[in-house]
Amino acid sequence: MPGRQMHLGVFSVGPGNHVAGWRMEGSFTSSEDFSAFLHIAETAERGKLDFVFIADGLASAPGDHPGSIARFEPFTLMSALAARTSRVGLIGTGSSTYTEPYNLARLVASLDHLSGGRSGWNVVTTSTPQAAANFGLTQPVEHDLRYEMAAEFVDVVQALWDSWEDGARIADRASGAYVDPAKIHPIEHDGRFYKVRGPLNLSRTPQGRPVIVQAGASDAGRGFACRYAEAIFTVQQDLDAAKAFYRETKDGVAAAGRVPEQCKILPGLFPVVGRTDEEARAKLAAMVELVDDRSAINTLSERLGHDMSGYDLDGPMPDLPPSAHIHSYHAVIRAIAQRPGCKLRDIYNIFAVSRAYLVACGSPETVADIMESWFTGPACDGFMLVPATFPGTFDDFVALVVPELQKRSLFRQDYAGTTLRDHLGLDVPENRFTAARAAG
Amino acid sequence: MPGRQMHLGVFSVGPGNHVAGWRMEGSFTSSEDFSAFLHIAETAERGKLDFVFIADGLASAPGDHPGSIARFEPFTLMSALAARTSRVGLIGTGSSTYTEPYNLARLVASLDHLSGGRSGWNVVTTSTPQAAANFGLTQPVEHDLRYEMAAEFVDVVQALWDSWEDGARIADRASGAYVDPAKIHPIEHDGRFYKVRGPLNLSRTPQGRPVIVQAGASDAGRGFACRYAEAIFTVQQDLDAAKAFYRETKDGVAAAGRVPEQCKILPGLFPVVGRTDEEARAKLAAMVELVDDRSAINTLSERLGHDMSGYDLDGPMPDLPPSAHIHSYHAVIRAIAQRPGCKLRDIYNIFAVSRAYLVACGSPETVADIMESWFTGPACDGFMLVPATFPGTFDDFVALVVPELQKRSLFRQDYAGTTLRDHLGLDVPENRFTAARAAG
Repeated sequence: MPGRQMHLGVFSVGPGNHVAGWRMEGSFTSSEDFSAFLHIAETAERGKLDFVFIADGLASAPGDHPGSIARFEPFTLMSALAARTSRVGLIGTGSSTYTEPYNLARLVASLDHLSGGRSGWNVVTTSTPQAAANFGLTQPVEHDLRYEMAAEFVDVVQALWDSWEDGARIADRASGAYVDPAKIHPIEHDGRFYKVRGPLNLSRTPQGRPVIVQAGASDAGRGFACRYAEAIFTVQQDLDAAKAFYRETKDGVAAAGRVPEQCKILPGLFPVVGRTDEEARAKLAAMVELVDDRSAINTLSERLGHDMSGYDLDGPMPDLPPSAHIHSYHAVIRAIAQRPGCKLRDIYNIFAVSRAYLVACGSPETVADIMESWFTGPACDGFMLVPATFPGTFDDFVALVVPELQKRSLFRQDYAGTTLRDHLGLDVPENRFTAARAAG
Repeated sequence: MPGRQMHLGVFSVGPGNHVAGWRMEGSFTSSEDFSAFLHIAETAERGKLDFVFIADGLASAPGDHPGSIARFEPFTLMSALAARTSRVGLIGTGSSTYTEPYNLARLVASLDHLSGGRSGWNVVTTSTPQAAANFGLTQPVEHDLRYEMAAEFVDVVQALWDSWEDGARIADRASGAYVDPAKIHPIEHDGRFYKVRGPLNLSRTPQGRPVIVQAGASDAGRGFACRYAEAIFTVQQDLDAAKAFYRETKDGVAAAGRVPEQCKILPGLFPVVGRTDEEARAKLAAMVELVDDRSAINTLSERLGHDMSGYDLDGPMPDLPPSAHIHSYHAVIRAIAQRPGCKLRDIYNIFAVSRAYLVACGSPETVADIMESWFTGPACDGFMLVPATFPGTFDDFVALVVPELQKRSLFRQDYAGTTLRDHLGLDVPENRFTAARAAG
C-alpha cells in the first residue's frame, strides 16, 4: 500500500503552452485539431494521469496566444475525447459570467454521463472587455460581483445535479413505470442573480456531481475556492510561498466547513526534460530563442490585463496600476521583479515561455527531485503540467519522468478506479434530497 | 448518373419515438445511454443515411416522454458520436430563446470542426412555461416575438461563422506569423435583441457554415424557414396537403431570394416494416397495445400545449382554445378529427404511437411504394425517419427498406462526399467578408 501519492493533470493546448511552441519542428500547430488533442489524451491515459484540462475564453483577437485565438468549445471537445478514451479525467473550463446555470449544468453533466464519470468543471468568471462585447455589454462585470454571481451560479448548478436522486429511473417494462416521481425534485431556487425551478433534464451522473475546479487567486477567488473547489490550479514560483499558500488554503477549506483533503492543490509545472540536465537546458534555451518581442508583449499584456507595449524592454518592471481584473499573476511578477538586475525582458521571457509557472528543467531525476520536494513540502498535492509543446515536451515527460515518479512510489502504477473522483481521491457528494429523506 | 434521390435522416431517441417503445423486449430504454446512440449512428452510417437528428428541450417533468425526461445535451452527444463515425451528418437542436448567440455559435461550429464538416443546427424557439421557469422567467416569451428573436439570433450566429475567412490561419514556422489579421473580422452586430462584436474564437468551419434546419409550422415559423432553413422537418399526414405544403414552401424560399433546391423538405415518417404486410400490421397492433391511457394523454397534452386529461376518451375531439405556443400539430389533428367516427382515443393512439407522423406500415416494397409516391409527388425531398423503437424498428428499416430504395435508384448506394452539405446537396455559402473583399 503506497503512501500519499501525487495527482497529475495536463494543461492541453494544441500549439503548446509556450507562445511559440508551434514553431518547433514536429509540434502540433492548432487548437482546432482533434487528432492533436486525441494524442494528448491517449498519452495522458498511458501515463496514468488524473486528467486532461482544457482552458477557455469567450473572445478572439489577433495577437492572442495561438492556443486561444481559435479553439474548440471545451465540452464538445471533451465529449469527443470521452468517446475515444476510457479512464483519464476530463476537466473543462466554463464561465459563470456569460451563460445560464441550466445550460452549463447540462453540458457538464452530459459529459459525466458520456464519459462514465470523468467530468470536471473549472469554474471561471470572465473579465475581459473583449468577452463582454460579445455578450452585449460595454463593460465587463465588476470583479467581486463576478464572484458573488459565480457562487450563486455554482449553488444552482450543484442543486440541479442533485435534482434526480439515484434510482429515479425505474424503466420497468412490466408495469410501464418509467420513473419514480418521488425521486425527482424541483430545486425552486430564487436568489439574487438567478431564478431556476428545475429539475434538470438529466439524471444523477456517475460521479454524483462532476468535480469542481477553480483557479482564481484574488481574495474573492480564494474565498470561492475554499467553499467550492475540489481541486485548485495555482501559479507558484517559490517553494516557501507555495507552502504558505498550501497551508492557508487548507485552513480556509476547513474554516468553510469542509474536509481539507477533499480539496487538492495543484500548482502549474512547466517541465523541460532531457536525458541530462545539459540537454534539458539546451532545449529551454532554444525555446527562449523562439520568442519574438511582439508575442512576448502580447502574452504579458493578456496575463496582466494591461497594455505593456509602451515600456522599455531593457528597463526594470514598471509600477502598474492595480489591475481591475486579473489577480493571479501579480504576486508572481512582483516576486520576480525584485530579483537583482531583473529587466522587463526577463519577465517577458518567463511569461512567453512558461506562462509564469514553475519551471522544472533537467534530467528525469532532476525534474522528479523538484516535484518531490514540493510534494513532500507539503506545497501541493500534485501538479498541473503545462508543457511547452505537444507532442514533444509532454511525451518526454510521460516517457521519462512518470516512470521515475513511479519508482519513487510518488505516483500510481495504474488507475485504481474509473472516475475522476476515484483518481483524485474525492468522495461522491451526498445527494441533498436523499439526505433530507433519510433525515425524515 | 442517378436522377433525383431522396435524403434520409433519423430522429434519434434512446427509448424510441413510440411512447412505450422501451417496453418492447430488446429495445433501448434510455436517452442517457451512449452505446444506444452509437448503435443508431453506426446503423445510419451503414445505411448511407444523410444524418442522425437529436431533438432537445429545456425542462423535465414526470410524465414526459421517456426520451425527453432525461437526455444528453445534443452537442456533447454528437461530438462523442463524431469521434466514432466518419460520414453520417449530425444535426442537433439548439434553442435561440434561452442562450446567447456567441455560445451557441461555438457549440455548433466546434462540432463542425470535430466532425470534419458534418454539423447541423436545428433552430428552435422554446415555448413551454416549464422551460421559462428554468431561465428566470415567470412566463414564456410570446410566440411571434420568439421568432423575431430567432431571426436576429441566426443572423448573428451566421455572421460569427463568417468572421474568420478561409486561410486566416497561416501558422508559418519560419516567420512566426500565426494568423493573417486582415482575414479575421469583428461583426459589430448591434440589433434589437443582441449586441455582439465578434470575431468568433473558432476559424471558418469545414462546411463554411453548419447546416440550418427548422421545423416550425406557424406563419412565423414558416416565414423563418423560407428565409433561413436549408432543411425543413415537417409533420404531414395527407399526400395532397403535403404536395401543397411542398409547393408553397419552395415558392416561399424563392420569394425570400433563395434557390428552392437549397431547402430540402423532409416530412416525418414512422416506418413499421415486416417481411409481409401482415407481419408489419401485427407489429403495429402490438405497439398500440402497449400504450396506456396516461402516457397517451401526457404525450398529446405535451404536443398540444393543453392539458387533455379532463376529456372523455370515447367522445369526439373537443374544440380547444387556440394554443399559445405549439402550432405544428394543430392542423394535423384537425384533419384527423374530421374523419368519420373519430374518437379522442384514436387521436391519443396516433400521437402516442407515431407522434402524429405519417405511418408507413408493411413489407419493404409497401413502405418503399409509399415513400416513392410522396417523393415523386413531389411532396418531399426525402424523409425524417421516426422509428418506434431502437434498435428494432430502425435496424429493420435499414436492413430491408434501404436496399429496396437503392434498387429503385431512389437512394444513394454510397456517400459521394464527406460533409453533411455534400450529402444534402447544399452549396457551401459564400463568406460575406471574402465576398466584400472580392467586390473591392
